[in-house]
This record gives sequence, structure tokens and C-alpha cells, in this order.
Amino acid sequence: MNINDVLELVTDEREAVEKNLIDNLDSDVEMVNKVASYVFESGGKRLRPVFMILSALMCGYDGERSIKLSGVVEYIHTATLLHDDVIDGALYRRGKKSANNIFGNDITVLCGDFLYSRAFMNLVKDGNCDIQMILAVAAATMSEGEVFQLIKTADVKITMEDYLKIINSKTAVLFSSCCEIGAILGEVSEEKQKALATFGRTLGIAFQMADDILDYLGDPEKTGKKPGTDLNEGKITLPVITLLENATDAECKRVRDIIVDERATDENLNYILELMHRYDIKAKSELVVDKYIQESKQSLELFENNKYRAALDFLADYMVAREK
Amino acid sequence: MNINDVLELVTDEREAVEKNLIDNLDSDVEMVNKVASYVFESGGKRLRPVFMILSALMCGYDGERSIKLSGVVEYIHTATLLHDDVIDGALYRRGKKSANNIFGNDITVLCGDFLYSRAFMNLVKDGNCDIQMILAVAAATMSEGEVFQLIKTADVKITMEDYLKIINSKTAVLFSSCCEIGAILGEVSEEKQKALATFGRTLGIAFQMADDILDYLGDPEKTGKKPGTDLNEGKITLPVITLLENATDAECKRVRDIIVDERATDENLNYILELMHRYDIKAKSELVVDKYIQESKQSLELFENNKYRAALDFLADYMVAREK
Repeated sequence: MNINDVLELVTDEREAVEKNLIDNLDSDVEMVNKVASYVFESGGKRLRPVFMILSALMCGYDGERSIKLSGVVEYIHTATLLHDDVIDGALYRRGKKSANNIFGNDITVLCGDFLYSRAFMNLVKDGNCDIQMILAVAAATMSEGEVFQLIKTADVKITMEDYLKIINSKTAVLFSSCCEIGAILGEVSEEKQKALATFGRTLGIAFQMADDILDYLGDPEKTGKKPGTDLNEGKITLPVITLLENATDAECKRVRDIIVDERATDENLNYILELMHRYDIKAKSELVVDKYIQESKQSLELFENNKYRAALDFLADYMVAREK
Repeated sequence: MNINDVLELVTDEREAVEKNLIDNLDSDVEMVNKVASYVFESGGKRLRPVFMILSALMCGYDGERSIKLSGVVEYIHTATLLHDDVIDGALYRRGKKSANNIFGNDITVLCGDFLYSRAFMNLVKDGNCDIQMILAVAAATMSEGEVFQLIKTADVKITMEDYLKIINSKTAVLFSSCCEIGAILGEVSEEKQKALATFGRTLGIAFQMADDILDYLGDPEKTGKKPGTDLNEGKITLPVITLLENATDAECKRVRDIIVDERATDENLNYILELMHRYDIKAKSELVVDKYIQESKQSLELFENNKYRAALDFLADYMVAREK
């Protein structure tokens, strides 16, 4: 099984999701449609819909609700991206100019709000209270998590527990919601619903961790990004936390000083990267990722072994795949 | 009947709403509670809850749901205020520093998002699909309306229809929702539900128009504000639209040039104010307000004449009361 085999399993559904995302943009204020269409036509892998739809299929549901609810989740996800880009002053997203860069912060914040409310409308139309509550809690957790991340910027006393809370909020909770919704659509037992929620959560955590490792230790030729963006933004992530657990007191002090006072000059970044290589931080961090991926895959064992389960199992590894 | 008589009718409910607003702020990210508490403790007249609760009482409902749903509406209203203040770069709100002024734009945007999602959670808990849909549509309309207002900034070709669309979105739709929800809680006929929705909508339009008149033509000693804020921000409102309908072509050209190119120097503002006095724009604009208030009060005629109806009837006039 490779990634194309997986995507082929849900070709029709993915097309239907794209159509749903655009069809729902029927604001009578043309600018709102324009901004939202711009964002959706800029692409995006629609990972969350793929997980929801495969989860539903694995649980025996192949109706239309997973398409519509995927649209809801992408609207919520996109609203958070729009607001994050305004907050970070990001100029680009997915290799294209960000919405705030083209349309301005004001319109971008409001279009985020519009997508939230449109997501909510479609959730009300779907009519399932459990699903509504899952996504309401997810949305609250995501905004709280962003605030928490802001507060913890350049806070070198951040703990692994704080870090887990941040990545749970910013990434894992929405993946978890998608998989759990798939289970609810399939009307499986509560035990299975919980297992799929765990699958999504642990996979989301591992996915964000893998991304955070790449930020420092990825191959720039493959990632297309200069290493150390997170250092620049004062975001303290898994590789730095792991480094601080392994380096000498003097080295830790220097690393902390860099984070607190100086941020990412080339010299500082190189110092940190050299320490990371010396202490084998990539391998050590990847062990943590692997632990979550294992937990994630174990959650699938409860389910009958069909091609959709195999696809989810494959995706768990694929989401954190890296050059060895 | 005076305003104190009206407020006394709902003293307990108003206290319960205040408690509900604060009690629901139980984020485990302390900063989120801090920002939201700051905003709620800064006051606000809680007009929307008063209208929802009086509507419910008039329709025979006196249970707890109107308190909880008032909390939902205030969360949505406050989220829009937080985002608006970020967009406008407002430094003050209700005579105190604005949240963005104290906590920064980033945290303020995210706390707005948090309030939206918390509002949504409480709506899901309430469990009534009609009410959920009313507020989802209201939230979408509000964000669309703000975008529309931004697009129409300093657009001198704005029509009365455009202006009505803007004030319907920014003010009337939420008042309308509150009154309609009161009717739903009271389980009255659909005709009565519609009548209360109309009551809230027309009253909301009149209220916003009265506010827009005061912005140019209010007594600064009573409003506490320098006239012409809207001119400064390029917002074209009822008194300007009325002026453009009444002035000569040459005067209109000068007014348009001021709005498009120059904005509010004292000299420009005085020119516009002088024209407004010459053409009796205050009285002419107030005629429009009165038309909406009349429509609003007519909508109440369908209901049994009890003290709550009398209170709503009083409030309709009170909301647009002015020195004659």
C-alpha cells in the first residue's frame, strides 16, 4: 500500500469535499466569497477530511454526512489559519501570498469569523448533538491553546506537559474530533468511538512533533524552509525541550539566553544545531514521535481488518515519515 | 412607567445573567479568563439580555433558559466587539482601555474566538435547533455585514439600501434574534414569533440610526464625544445620506470630496454640520427613526397587554429618546 492507493480509496469523497467547500460560500457580500475562495483554491491537503471519511468508512458509514461534516471541519481549520496568519503577520501560506497579505488584516479576521459561523450553521443542519459538542469543545480548545502558546513564547521554563498541551490544542484535538465523528457516523460502540478519538489525538500529536523536529533538523532542500523559524518566533518545541534535558548546565544556560534575549542570528542557530547534532536530538525526539504513533496504531486493533483500517494504519506512519 | 420601573421587572434575571457571564469563564488557560472577565466587568448595559428576557416573560416563559441564552448572546456580541476594536485599532471602550490596548491584538482576537466557541457550546447544551439556527445565521450576518461596511468605507455612492444592510447586520439582527428567541421560549404561535423578530429588527435599526445621528448632531456635553467620529472613519450614515438627498449639486460635490479625499479636519466637519443645520437634517433623519419605532411598536399589538409588553413598548421609545 502506498499513499496513492490510500487516496484512491476516497477519490470521489475528496472531490465532493472540494465542491462542498466552494458551494457553501454563498454570502451575498461578494468580498467574503472572494477571500474564502482564494484560501480554499490555494490548496491544502485536506488531511482532516481524509481521516474523517476513512474513519467513517472503516466503521461502515458511506453516506453524505461525512462530506458535509468534513466541510465544517475545514471551515473551522481555515478560520484558525486566517486568524493565526493575522496574529503572526505571516506573508505567505502554502507558497502563495497569505489572505491578510492580499486583503488586509481587518477583512481576514472577519472572514475567519464568517467561516466559524458558517461551520456552525452547517453543524446545526446536521443536527447531531454529540458531534456538535465535540466540535464546539475542539474550537474552544484551539483558541485557548493559541493563547497559551502566546503566553509561553520564549518562556524557557516551559515543561513537556505545557508543550503537549499546546500541540494537543493546535493540532491533535481537531484530528481527534474528525476520527471520533467518523466513528459516530458509523454508529459503533462507545469503546470504538473512544479508540478512534485516541487514534486521531495521538496521531495529531505525533504529526505536530514531527513538524517541530523538521523545523530545526529537516533537510532544507526537502522542506523548502530555512531551519529555525520556531526559534525566531520564540516557540519552544520538542527538539529544544529534548536538548535542554540532555545538554550540560552551561550549554543549557547559553541556549536559554539565546531564546530569551537574542533569538535566531545565524551564529546562535548554528550553536543550537551543533548541540542538537552532538546530543543526537533528532533520534531522541523521533523516539517520542514513534511512541505516539505506536499508541495511535494500537487504537486501531479494536476494528475489523478491512482496507480502510489498513489505509488509516498506513497514514499514521506516512504522516510522520522522514528520511532516515 | 420609567426606565427604573422596567429594569426592576427583571432585576433578578439581570443579576443572574451577570453571574452566568462570569461563571462560564472556566478556561484552564488563565489569561483567557482574565481578558474575558476584564471585558465583562467593564460593564455594558446588557440591552440584548433585557430584550430577550422581557420577550420571554411577555410570552409566558420565566425559566432559566433565557438567562443561559442571554449569556450566549452576550458572548457573541462581546466577541464581535473584541474583533471590531482590533480592526478599528480602538484604544477605549465604555470609558476604559480596550482589551486590545491592554492585552494586545493577538490575545484579543483569540479571546473573541474563544467566546464564540463557548457561546456555541452553551447553545448546543440548550439543544433547541431553531434557536441554534437563528444565532448561527445572526453570527454569519454580523461578520458579513462588517466586511460590507469595510468595503463601503468612504464610498460616496452608498445607497440607503446599502446603509440599511449594514446596520441590519451590525445591530438589528442580534436584537431581532433575542426577541425571537424569547418568543420561542414562550412557545407562542409562529405569527407571534415573527412579530417579535420584527419588533427586535426594526427597533435595532432605529437604535443604530439614532446613534448615527448623535455622532454628527448630538450635544457633545451629553454624548461625551466630539462630533464626527464616523466622518473620520469614512462611515457614511443616515445624516450624511439624508444631507446628500437635500443639498444642492455643488454642496453635494464638496461633501463627497471631503469624504473621499480629506476626511475630518475641523473646517470640513464644520462645513458639513452647517449644511446639516441649514437643511434641518436632524429632524429629517429623526423622521426615519420614528418610522421604524412605529413599526416596532405595532409588532407588539398582537400580544396580550401585560406589564412586560408595556415595558417593551416603553423601551422602544427609550432606546431612541433624545432632547427635543
